[in-house]
Formats: sequence, structure tokens, C-alpha cells
Amino acid sequence: MSIFNNHLGLYTDFYELTMAQGYFYHKKEKKSATFDYFFRTNPFNGGFTVFAGLYDFLELLAKFNYSKTDIEFLKNQGLKSEFLEYLKDFRFQGNIFSVNEGEIVFPNAPVLRVEGNIIESQIIESLLLNFLNFESLIATKAFRIKMVSGNKIFSDFGLRRAQGFGALHASRAACIGGAASTSNVMAGKLYNLPVTGTQAHSWIQSFDNELQAFRAFAEVNQDNTILLVDTFETLKSGVPNAIIVAKELEKKGKKLKAIRLDSGDLAYFSKKARKLLDDAGLKYVKIIASNQLNEFVVKSLLHDQRAPIDAFGIGTELITGKSDAALDGVYKLAEIDGLPKMKFSENIEKVTLPGKKKLIRFFDENGYFYRDGIICEDEIPENVHTLYHPVYPEKNSIIQDLKYQVLLQKVMDNGRIIIKNKSPLAIHNYLKERIQLLPSEHQRFISPHIYKVGISKKLMETRNYLTKQLKVQDSA
Amino acid sequence: MSIFNNHLGLYTDFYELTMAQGYFYHKKEKKSATFDYFFRTNPFNGGFTVFAGLYDFLELLAKFNYSKTDIEFLKNQGLKSEFLEYLKDFRFQGNIFSVNEGEIVFPNAPVLRVEGNIIESQIIESLLLNFLNFESLIATKAFRIKMVSGNKIFSDFGLRRAQGFGALHASRAACIGGAASTSNVMAGKLYNLPVTGTQAHSWIQSFDNELQAFRAFAEVNQDNTILLVDTFETLKSGVPNAIIVAKELEKKGKKLKAIRLDSGDLAYFSKKARKLLDDAGLKYVKIIASNQLNEFVVKSLLHDQRAPIDAFGIGTELITGKSDAALDGVYKLAEIDGLPKMKFSENIEKVTLPGKKKLIRFFDENGYFYRDGIICEDEIPENVHTLYHPVYPEKNSIIQDLKYQVLLQKVMDNGRIIIKNKSPLAIHNYLKERIQLLPSEHQRFISPHIYKVGISKKLMETRNYLTKQLKVQDSA
Repeated sequence: MSIFNNHLGLYTDFYELTMAQGYFYHKKEKKSATFDYFFRTNPFNGGFTVFAGLYDFLELLAKFNYSKTDIEFLKNQGLKSEFLEYLKDFRFQGNIFSVNEGEIVFPNAPVLRVEGNIIESQIIESLLLNFLNFESLIATKAFRIKMVSGNKIFSDFGLRRAQGFGALHASRAACIGGAASTSNVMAGKLYNLPVTGTQAHSWIQSFDNELQAFRAFAEVNQDNTILLVDTFETLKSGVPNAIIVAKELEKKGKKLKAIRLDSGDLAYFSKKARKLLDDAGLKYVKIIASNQLNEFVVKSLLHDQRAPIDAFGIGTELITGKSDAALDGVYKLAEIDGLPKMKFSENIEKVTLPGKKKLIRFFDENGYFYRDGIICEDEIPENVHTLYHPVYPEKNSIIQDLKYQVLLQKVMDNGRIIIKNKSPLAIHNYLKERIQLLPSEHQRFISPHIYKVGISKKLMETRNYLTKQLKVQDSA
Repeated sequence: MSIFNNHLGLYTDFYELTMAQGYFYHKKEKKSATFDYFFRTNPFNGGFTVFAGLYDFLELLAKFNYSKTDIEFLKNQGLKSEFLEYLKDFRFQGNIFSVNEGEIVFPNAPVLRVEGNIIESQIIESLLLNFLNFESLIATKAFRIKMVSGNKIFSDFGLRRAQGFGALHASRAACIGGAASTSNVMAGKLYNLPVTGTQAHSWIQSFDNELQAFRAFAEVNQDNTILLVDTFETLKSGVPNAIIVAKELEKKGKKLKAIRLDSGDLAYFSKKARKLLDDAGLKYVKIIASNQLNEFVVKSLLHDQRAPIDAFGIGTELITGKSDAALDGVYKLAEIDGLPKMKFSENIEKVTLPGKKKLIRFFDENGYFYRDGIICEDEIPENVHTLYHPVYPEKNSIIQDLKYQVLLQKVMDNGRIIIKNKSPLAIHNYLKERIQLLPSEHQRFISPHIYKVGISKKLMETRNYLTKQLKVQDSA
């Protein structure tokens, strides 16, 4: 099912098109270019990032072209006729190499690479950044919640607070990160996600009283009944009425599934409600909690306060990646026609790494992630002896003879997607395998240990050589 | 131009559908219902909110129905055949009353009201909340930036950091709030917004040197040339090369439009760059700044540091409404079949206001906004003598004989949009008129004075009566 039937060529920043026109005008459109995608900071002050959004991006990229009215619009923006002629038949026909969706990744590592002619690799920048940045942000947020949830489940309840149609991709990313289901029905259909939801306070209010509302709901939904118990008074009215309905369901051989708490102190109310349910012989009735949750509140409820909550509904903070709200991923030119290129910067940490590169993950003797290494495309990992800190080369790590894995794999070949569309659950399962290999000190929420990403000697020398050349040019 | 060709009936939380099915099963589908939209907190710790998203919401609502495959999907989710039959022909046919887009609004005031049958008014909840919450958030953020920009302009550069397709509506809302243009070409086409953009570092890098890159860009773009000057060294290379190109353009009778700074200390670099340009006789060349800006940074640059910056490009924080990331708007049942309804809560500030209501803005003797009053639908504003704080009635304001304005107007009639689609610029102009009437103490960024929203005596008494009734029922 297509979520967006428009031609997507306009889903770009205008400067991509003015640059593309410039390349076209200067007859550079056949020049090849290589760009890297990477980010500079883990979101949420965390120690890692979950890479997501790849398949969505690739599918949208396959629709990245221009309709007649798009061309007309661009003409009105002042773009020139010859270039617009060129755009009429535009399709991305380059190659893309990427880490897997669900991979655990780290700042400054080029986790995706685009190769194509200079125009096609340039004008897809905004689309690429938009989807990779956003889904990686949300998948990371969701996984942080998953990490503290243990064997309890949580659902995405975020549609009403999501950023417009960003809701759709956010729900996919939330399930990649570990949400068991979503309330967003369209996302459910698009991505084949489990869909859940029961009733709001308005259901209760629309009846003469709470008990009547509960009975009416149970009558329709039978075994699939979850009752919202905080419309009036949770412990004096909501839970006692839910118990009455549970007993009535029992007489029909049915079971009340759960109650939901949506306000007040969730630790206090869940404990009191659990006791009332248990005392009524309803140990099987689960307790669901919602209302302004995030990974820290869930952790506090389950770990510190031992709240007997079985499942969580999480909205705003999950679906918007609050309070980061964005991942700072960038897309930087690495090579033109075989010549390595870099962006110099007065801030040395922002100097980019030139040329085509490999991203290699090295494992320690126990099989844990040890270092990520960025090496030149023509280097063989076995021959790389040491990885150097990109800014402070006196900090370095010997990785010779360690087991390793090549992280970038071809995912698009001449504009054609060559990987399978894995379900969000399958991607989540991959993520669960990978996190087992990340040492726990990188998994902490508070001041996590920094996972080291280094560069090879050859790459460092290439960068230093180019820097010197730029300096010479500059003072010439 | 349609941005989203799908049927939108699935763009909802699943619980809306389980409730709707319940209403249908219990033969309540003909019952009338009234819902209020309001929010509880101004975003960004500010003193007001800019209401936006209305027309987008109404247009999407007009497409809120179910395709065959949607019905099939819902069948697989366990919804019953008779109800799905009903959904096949579903269209929202109710009435909607709202404040104008661009209105300055405040917490707890019902700024929009939906009237319809109970099913139709319920299942549109998530769509309504999603778009009103999001666009109001972004319009408010943009307007805060506008407030500190004075006669300088700013553009939305946010697409790459936006939350997926949320980018489209965010760019519209940014222009409502005061962005002069957007880099997002598709948003430009959808909403007829001015589109701007020039070049990235990759353009500079793709040439042998910076001067060559500048010349090549100016050759294509002539009078419309903006040069990014921080790829190598801003003051030693970027600005001097821009000056060379500006002089070359002058010889052709053309003028360099601007330079752009995208890194480093923007106050420092803008001052130094301004001096270099001025000394070269290029006073007309403007300076554009970008890189991690928000209302506080812009204020500091312009007001405290007197940075000679003429225009700003603002991305992440504008397009995501960081760090709030969401407005907390809710949709609450107020009436069923003529009977006022309310949600009780252990937290008295969360008790809702029952019944159909009017929202009235009272003006002080100088014509400034003085109080917003929520009164019963059958009350006449002239007859309301006093407004009471909703929680502490001992706090009250006399508003008798003050001039007033009725804020809610009908915008949808039996499912048909009856207002014009105003351009974002026209909405912004309305906003500019309205902000003139808001006393300055509510406009402060730090600890703004709280604008008072009160209720009439009759509304208070209705609420208190219903509260008592609920208490009686509860202890019965």
C-alpha cells in the first residue's frame, strides 16, 4: 500500500535543485559522486543509536521523480528550461550501501553511502536525511523504553501528539524499537503492525453511569474487554465496577482482559487496584497504565516502586522523540570522480573524512562489540593494525587479529532495491540480537561510556594530506 | 493539490473504532454529541499560543472515509460486519465551530467545537488532535522567532530534520508564524509558499577550489547568487573570494545578493564579514546566518550582540517545535443529546467544562485583550457580569459593559467547509494584527504574566451541580 501517491521529486530543499542546475549547466552531470550519511551525537544523551528508516527511504526514493505540474512549479521558481527537460526523466539510478535496519550504531561512523552521478546523489539528500534521522530517533527512543520494560509490554499511543503525518513512520520505528503494537490504525495497515485500543473517557461519560458503560462495552467486546477505570474515582468507583463486570463475564465463561489507569499516581493506584482485583479472585486481570510516560518513568515504576503494571501505553515522548525531537544526521560529500573530497572546518571535529570508506566492526575476545573502524575502501581489514581517534591520534587501539564484520552492504543497485522488506518485528529481533553484544557500560542512561569509532592510518594520512593541500591553497 | 490521496478513515486511534462499534451495537449512532478542543499549557513556557492547522484539518476531514481494503483490514482486526457496513458509507456530516487560524489563544479555552452524531464526532478525534496540536505548536515557535527578528527575515530550513512527512504541515505553520519562505519545495507547491535555497558545502567541494565554485554558481544564478563562505576559512578564504565574485558581477551590471555563514560564532563572523564587505564597497551584500538557531539565539545575536545579520535560516528547532515537540491539546465530550457531560478527576484542574459553550474575548478600555470568558451557549455576553477562575472562584473579574468579541465561528456546516482557504501569509497578517492587542507582559519569554480565562457563574453552577450528582451516585 502506498502511503503517498505524489511524485516525490519536490520533497527536497530548493538548494539541491539550484546546485543540480549548476552542475547541469557546467556539464558536470556525468561526474560521479559519493556521499556519506552519519550523525554526530547519540540522541537522549545515550550511548548508542538504533539505525532505522532505511526501507521507507528506499521505497520513497523509487518514487522520486517529477510530474508535469512539478516541472511547471519549478519553472515558476526560475529554474531553466534545459535543466527542467533533464528533470522530466529523472530517476535515481545510483548505488546505496548501508548497515542493516536495527543495527546499533555510533556517532561519526558513515552508516550509509550513496554513489551516483553528482546530480542524482545530491538532490536526494533531504529525503534521505528526513527519513533516516527521524526513524532512527524514534526507534532509539522506543528501544530505550523496551530496555527498562523487562517482560512487560508497551504500545504506541502517540497519534494525537505526533507531528502530522510523521505519525505513520514514527509508529513503524516505534515497533522496530520494541513497541508491541500501535493505536494508529493506518500505520497498522501500512506496515502490518498489531493494532490495539479500547475506550476513552467519552465512552464512559456517554452512558448514565460507569457500571452501565462498562457492561455495554463488555457486551460488545467480550473476552477482549479493557476497562478505563479513572473517569470518576479510580478506587471507589472504577475498579469496583470493573470487578462487577469481570464477575458477570465469568458467569458467561469469559474473562475481563485488563483495566487501564490513565491519571494520578500510577504506582499508588496500580498497587491498590491490584489488591482489589486479587482480593476479588481476579489475579488474571491485567493492569495497563498510560499518561505522560517515558523510559525514566517506566524504569522508576517497575524497578524502584515495583508497581504491578503489566503493560504501558506511551504517547507524546515516544512518538516525537521528545525532548531531542531530531537526530543530527548529515550527508557529506566524500569523493568526486575518484578524487577524495573533504569539508574543512575551523572546528576540527567537524572536518569530514575523505574518499570511499569501509565501516568495520571489531569484536573483543568474548565476542562483544569492541571498536568500529573507518578504513579506506581499498584497505583490507586484516591489514589494519591500529585504529586512531579521528581528532587525537595519540589515542588509539590495536585491533590486529580481532574478529570483525563488514557493516555496509549494498541495498540499492542502479536504482533498484535489492534487499527484502523485513517486518518491523523482524528488525526488532535483529536489534535484540545485536544489543546482546554491546557491553553494558554503553547501555547506561546516565553518562554512558563512549563507544570508540576510530580511523585507519591510511585514512588519517589522506585526511592530513588534503588538509595540508587546502592550507597551501589558502595561503597561496 | 492533494498531498495525501489515501482514504483517511484509518488515520485514527483504534479505540475510536471500538467505541464507535459499541455505540453502533447499542443503537446510539443517532445520538448527538458535542466535543471541545482545548489545550492545557502554552508551549515553550510562553504566555500564549498561535492557533493553526484548521484548514488542513478540515480538508483532510473531507477525505475521512473508508476504502474497500480499509474495511477488509478492519474486519481482520475483529470489527463486526454490521458496523463495517455502516463504515462503508461513512462521511463526517457534522458542524464545526472554531476560532480563526492565526488567533492568539490561551490554555483551557475551548477554541474549537465539534457537533455531530456520537460516532462521527468520536472517530475524527485523532485526526483533529494530530493536526491542530502540531501546527499550533510550530506556528507558535515560528512567531516567537518572528517577535525577536524585528525587520530581519527568517526562512524555514528544516526539512532534513523534520519528523517525516510532518515537514509539509510544519512548513505551512512556520509561514503562518512568520517565516518568510521555506526550503521545502513540496510545501512551497502545496501551500504556495515562497521557496528559497542556494548551495551546500558539497557544491564548493565539487570544484577544484572555492573561487572557481563561487564563479561557477554566480555564472548560472547571476543576481540571485548567495555564497556559502565557511567551507574552508570564512574570513581568510570565503569572504575574500565572495568579494572577488561580487566585483566580477558588478562589471556585468549584476549584484551579489548575500553571503551565508553556517558555522562558528555567528556574532564574531558576521561583524568581521560585514567589515570586509563594507570596506570593499559592498554594503548592499547581505549576510545570512544559519546553524542551530532558535528564538533565544536570534534575540541574543540581534539585540545583545548587535550582529549585522540580515536574514536567518532556521531548521531543527523551528520544524520540530523543540524542545516541547508537542502541544498537549485534548478533545473532551461536553454534551450528549442535549445533556451536559463532564469528566470528573481527582485533580480538579482536569475536571472538564460541561455543555455547549461560547468563548468570548473581552477588551479593556484601551482595546487590549483583557479576559477570555467561557459561558453557556444560551447566555448573552452582555448579561454576564463576572468571570470566575475555574478552580478558585474567589479569584474573579468584573467584565460587565466591556467590549467583547465572539471567538467561535462556524467553519464546517453538515460536513461542508464554509470558510475560505486563506494563504499562510494572510493568516500571518491576521496574527500580526492580533498580537498588537495582547498586553506586552503576556509576550515575555521569561515568566510571562498569565492571561486569565474565566467561566460564567451559570457555567460554574452547572459544573458544581454535576459534580455533586456524580458524588451522590458514587456513594449510593
